Amino acid sequence: MQNGERIILGVDPGTTIMGFGVIGVTGKKMRLITLDVINLKKLDNHFLKLQAIFEKSLRIIEEFLPDEMALEAPFFGKNVQSMLKLGRAQGVVMAAGLYRQIPVVEYSPRKIKQSITGKGSASKEQVSAMLQQLFQFEEVPKYLDATDGLAVAVCHAFQNQPAQLQGSSKKVNSWESFISNNPSRLR
Amino acid sequence: MQNGERIILGVDPGTTIMGFGVIGVTGKKMRLITLDVINLKKLDNHFLKLQAIFEKSLRIIEEFLPDEMALEAPFFGKNVQSMLKLGRAQGVVMAAGLYRQIPVVEYSPRKIKQSITGKGSASKEQVSAMLQQLFQFEEVPKYLDATDGLAVAVCHAFQNQPAQLQGSSKKVNSWESFISNNPSRLR
Repeated sequence: MQNGERIILGVDPGTTIMGFGVIGVTGKKMRLITLDVINLKKLDNHFLKLQAIFEKSLRIIEEFLPDEMALEAPFFGKNVQSMLKLGRAQGVVMAAGLYRQIPVVEYSPRKIKQSITGKGSASKEQVSAMLQQLFQFEEVPKYLDATDGLAVAVCHAFQNQPAQLQGSSKKVNSWESFISNNPSRLR
Repeated sequence: MQNGERIILGVDPGTTIMGFGVIGVTGKKMRLITLDVINLKKLDNHFLKLQAIFEKSLRIIEEFLPDEMALEAPFFGKNVQSMLKLGRAQGVVMAAGLYRQIPVVEYSPRKIKQSITGKGSASKEQVSAMLQQLFQFEEVPKYLDATDGLAVAVCHAFQNQPAQLQGSSKKVNSWESFISNNPSRLR
């Protein structure tokens, strides 16, 4: 918390491109601090990707000193192998937050799209356009993963419920409550 | 490396019980340093479990200062949701190693059983009995997850190929090479 401003880091932890956005929230006002991607395409080794995700996440945390971290966390994917890889990517991002004692919350892709555009099935382009309008940034980033990361931060800000460490804010950070709040994600 | 002895930490990162073992290797000699479990059963929140896994992993690393870390990493599981959870647990353990600049390698459950007992389909009890014989420890631990963790460390020692950071030892730590070396794990 800097001068009463909550700094929120939003991350979309993919295994090819990881998008992130940082916003500052004061009351109902939000300002964009940064948005960018970490491009992992050149790293052909899954382990090197994890290493890059972890190191870069720590660096982002050190640079922007977020009070809270929000993750886009799909709970289902195409197959068990891709989910294991994705779980590992999420795990290292979470660990970076845990290491710095930052509470980590997670939101489903549907919930994020819903918060930003009012429509859970919105496209990446629609989410990006809405954020561009909200923050009046000049260029659409090359990779929409950057706006995806930003979207997570904004979604969390919209919940108007600061995340807390140690699971005291069960409503947003527990796996079980996520599932019970999102029965449609179960199959 | 302490007096020419390689310290290897082996971890079986489950989401209910995480087993680990630490051994010292000098030439062809191995000595048992410790084996134990982290019981996560009481933590009913997935996020708290990850936090506990991360913190405990860091503490184990700080206490025993391993030169290398080996993980048991199943590549397939019952369903996508359990694989995502497992991936997260693996991710935070890996991050703890990465944070301390310790190279992390991974082995499939089959490879581990094969190295210890000569049989890829050996039971946990058989693996445990073989390790008990090898290290002459007095009591079988309450949870066989502890010997599972130890088994990973011993499996890695048997490869006789020290792990290296930054993916230079691709043979052991890349996902792609794991799969190409273990075609039977693909389905």
